[in-house]
Amino acid sequence: MLSKKNLKLIQSLRYKKQRDIHRQFIVEGDKVVTDLLHSDWEIPHLFATPEWLLQLPAGDKKKPGQITELSDRELKKISTLKTPNRVLAVVMKPEYSMSWEEIASDLTLFLEEIQDPGNLGTILRIAAWFGIKNVCCSTSTADLYNPKVVQATMGALLFVKVHYVEPVPFLRECSGRGIPVYGTYLHGNTIYETSLAHNGLIVLGNESRGISGDCSTFATEKISIPRFGSHERGMESLNVAVAAAIVCSEFRRRE
Amino acid sequence: MLSKKNLKLIQSLRYKKQRDIHRQFIVEGDKVVTDLLHSDWEIPHLFATPEWLLQLPAGDKKKPGQITELSDRELKKISTLKTPNRVLAVVMKPEYSMSWEEIASDLTLFLEEIQDPGNLGTILRIAAWFGIKNVCCSTSTADLYNPKVVQATMGALLFVKVHYVEPVPFLRECSGRGIPVYGTYLHGNTIYETSLAHNGLIVLGNESRGISGDCSTFATEKISIPRFGSHERGMESLNVAVAAAIVCSEFRRRE
Repeated sequence: MLSKKNLKLIQSLRYKKQRDIHRQFIVEGDKVVTDLLHSDWEIPHLFATPEWLLQLPAGDKKKPGQITELSDRELKKISTLKTPNRVLAVVMKPEYSMSWEEIASDLTLFLEEIQDPGNLGTILRIAAWFGIKNVCCSTSTADLYNPKVVQATMGALLFVKVHYVEPVPFLRECSGRGIPVYGTYLHGNTIYETSLAHNGLIVLGNESRGISGDCSTFATEKISIPRFGSHERGMESLNVAVAAAIVCSEFRRRE
Repeated sequence: MLSKKNLKLIQSLRYKKQRDIHRQFIVEGDKVVTDLLHSDWEIPHLFATPEWLLQLPAGDKKKPGQITELSDRELKKISTLKTPNRVLAVVMKPEYSMSWEEIASDLTLFLEEIQDPGNLGTILRIAAWFGIKNVCCSTSTADLYNPKVVQATMGALLFVKVHYVEPVPFLRECSGRGIPVYGTYLHGNTIYETSLAHNGLIVLGNESRGISGDCSTFATEKISIPRFGSHERGMESLNVAVAAAIVCSEFRRRE
């Protein structure tokens, strides 16, 4: 049974302010919740249909602080999805700190003001695929714990550490540490012919404005994905998540 | 002023059956409609706010069969967007036929049952970026003229010819003509180490099931995008549009 208190809590977690106060967020969906149950993330409360709980191995049931059975109708009330799943978890935000050692030695994404939740989620999924451990976001980037972002990550938020940082001080620190900074632009040097380090920052800019002037000053290399074919009036750009995928693939294949 | 007849026509064009009957579809948005006005596509009717029409060069106003001024409120009624744009065009579906000469000599995408309109639109945008002239779709793939697909193409539908075909006869014909068929799989040969021709078919499968057994038999090469890093329980897949982008980039960079 869904109590009024829980209904209110879950609905409040759609808003960043409430997520920050409670330090909690919601995760929906069979696959991601199952992955969560096998992680070390804290799950104060799990809401699921009796059918979903029936197929859950006994060991997995020990993990959530509390389990509440809900009818499909009740689940629909708390779900943020058009087609509600059979399970919803209230999850504690993980606590991790940024390791400069990792940032200096590995590949890291830096997102400046990515605003579309779907793009942010997809970029995290790409990062996880390419074994990128850290994604740093400007504070103006969409919130990782927005339900739409969580959904779009398809579970990648379990494998990638996401840090929110002030862009200029962060980039200044990278620069001071001699970390290569690869800015992605519409008109830069073709990535196919650019020599790429094994470590460094890949900077992806806002969906309409690209990378700001302030951040651009820190780019040690300006790279582009070349456009092919010859349209008089051609495509103006690639989607930022698509660009992220191509750039990550280029870096990783050369390792 | 929006007549009842026009309101009814435009609303009916949200459905494939009606689009097939009328051989028309709708396009919204400043940029794409401007591109359309400079193309040779037929535009029987343009609906726009007075402000939008004011900034339109006189030459562009000659092109649509009819122009109707609408208030923001009226435009909202006919728009499929949450935030309606200032212009909506009723457009005749273009007529073009498939050239086997082009398919044999260039790179072509073959989409088997891509169901998500956003994915189809994004894939067409990627194809246009990489100068791919033809995209062949199984008849079970989402409809190109679905407003959500049109929106997601960001105008790419002007630069790419999309053909709907029966998969097996189409692939048999490719096979008979000796056209290389590159199937994309989760577990194939890493694309980075596969030799890729300058021409051929890149096959992308359904979002959940991948490429069917029937189509797989025609694959002359099975390729994969390798996963990096070492998660015990890692990401299971990449989004199909993301995979398309990486594969297209790999083919084109080697040219």
